Amino acid sequence: MDRFAPEMQACIDECLRCYQTCLGMITNHCLRLGGAHAAPEHIQLMLTCAETCRASAQIMIIGSPHHKRLCTDCADICENCAAECKRIGNMDDCVQACRRCAERCRKMAA
Amino acid sequence: MDRFAPEMQACIDECLRCYQTCLGMITNHCLRLGGAHAAPEHIQLMLTCAETCRASAQIMIIGSPHHKRLCTDCADICENCAAECKRIGNMDDCVQACRRCAERCRKMAA
Amino acid sequence: MDRFAPEMQACIDECLRCYQTCLGMITNHCLRLGGAHAAPEHIQLMLTCAETCRASAQIMIIGSPHHKRLCTDCADICENCAAECKRIGNMDDCVQACRRCAERCRKMAA
Amino acid sequence: MDRFAPEMQACIDECLRCYQTCLGMITNHCLRLGGAHAAPEHIQLMLTCAETCRASAQIMIIGSPHHKRLCTDCADICENCAAECKRIGNMDDCVQACRRCAERCRKMAA
Repeated sequence: MDRFAPEMQACIDECLRCYQTCLGMITNHCLRLGGAHAAPEHIQLMLTCAETCRASAQIMIIGSPHHKRLCTDCADICENCAAECKRIGNMDDCVQACRRCAERCRKMAA
Repeated sequence: MDRFAPEMQACIDECLRCYQTCLGMITNHCLRLGGAHAAPEHIQLMLTCAETCRASAQIMIIGSPHHKRLCTDCADICENCAAECKRIGNMDDCVQACRRCAERCRKMAA
Repeated sequence: MDRFAPEMQACIDECLRCYQTCLGMITNHCLRLGGAHAAPEHIQLMLTCAETCRASAQIMIIGSPHHKRLCTDCADICENCAAECKRIGNMDDCVQACRRCAERCRKMAA
Repeated sequence: MDRFAPEMQACIDECLRCYQTCLGMITNHCLRLGGAHAAPEHIQLMLTCAETCRASAQIMIIGSPHHKRLCTDCADICENCAAECKRIGNMDDCVQACRRCAERCRKMAA
């Protein structure tokens, strides 16, 4: 198999890690805490971040030159999610995964 | 259930229709025709268009305000796919589905 | 394009409708109601039903003979989701979408 | 965040690895080789295996007890894909990823 370039593989890895963190925390963490963590707007943002990371990874895996578009969106949405998770607190794993993913996506989109 | 606004439901419908057309034609049509229809670049574009439509629909269904970003990407990628399918010919269903989806996504992103 | 058989198209349609209903109701309905509707186990079931419907539709669209396996799972999970939504109440749209999808998937899997 | 059990995380990892291998090889390898590697039935199987792995990972990440159903399907489809890829040859990365994923999914489904 013709492998992915190392920077692209690293970006796919971060996207799939952020996807797992955002989606997994919804039912395993946020809904158990309740309050602001279970607000519709917070869960919408977590689900949106998870899906955008998943789709960005898929476009890179397909090998499409359109990945730059998805990576730009992904970087912006991850930064938004990191900021919101920082604000409500007790979401450190998500803040970290989103920031790492945003950084990698920004480089891929350049 | 609180239903989607009519324009959003129409956009979700077109995204899911275009997703079905692009993904379904890969194995049921393009790979059977062979030649330019089975070129890696053409299949990459069809898979990318299908995934972007699928993800845009998902972000609208989630109810996230970030849908405008995905809809803009989706409109651009659908227009690219329609133009490429028009160019290689014998892809009328895909050209039509992509154009309709692009038009709806453009309105949602406005 | 070689079109899908009518029974398969009908099953794809119900899967995509049930996917939209389950995923859309999470943030637009369940989390707004709170209580049992926002319990982690309920949201896990809604998310699982949405993803299984989405994946079943995709395997049918790809044109794979493996769709019978996914349709069987989808029918079982939809029936489980319909029963649970009936039990907690105020989930009529979801009960109806899940039952219709289960019925169609059961026929496709036969 | 409440982390996944180690065996579940290992299964999610193998599912996402197999998904990447199957999806990535379609346009980066199979369609470039042509012949039996570009046959509609082979690409259908690769796309089906990729989507089933992706969906199985998602159901585990959601934390649903229904993951056993999807993991059973995933194990069967991966074994089918490994056997077919072994038969047509020059698909070693896919054979290996499918076998590892099948083994992990079989354990999770037990």
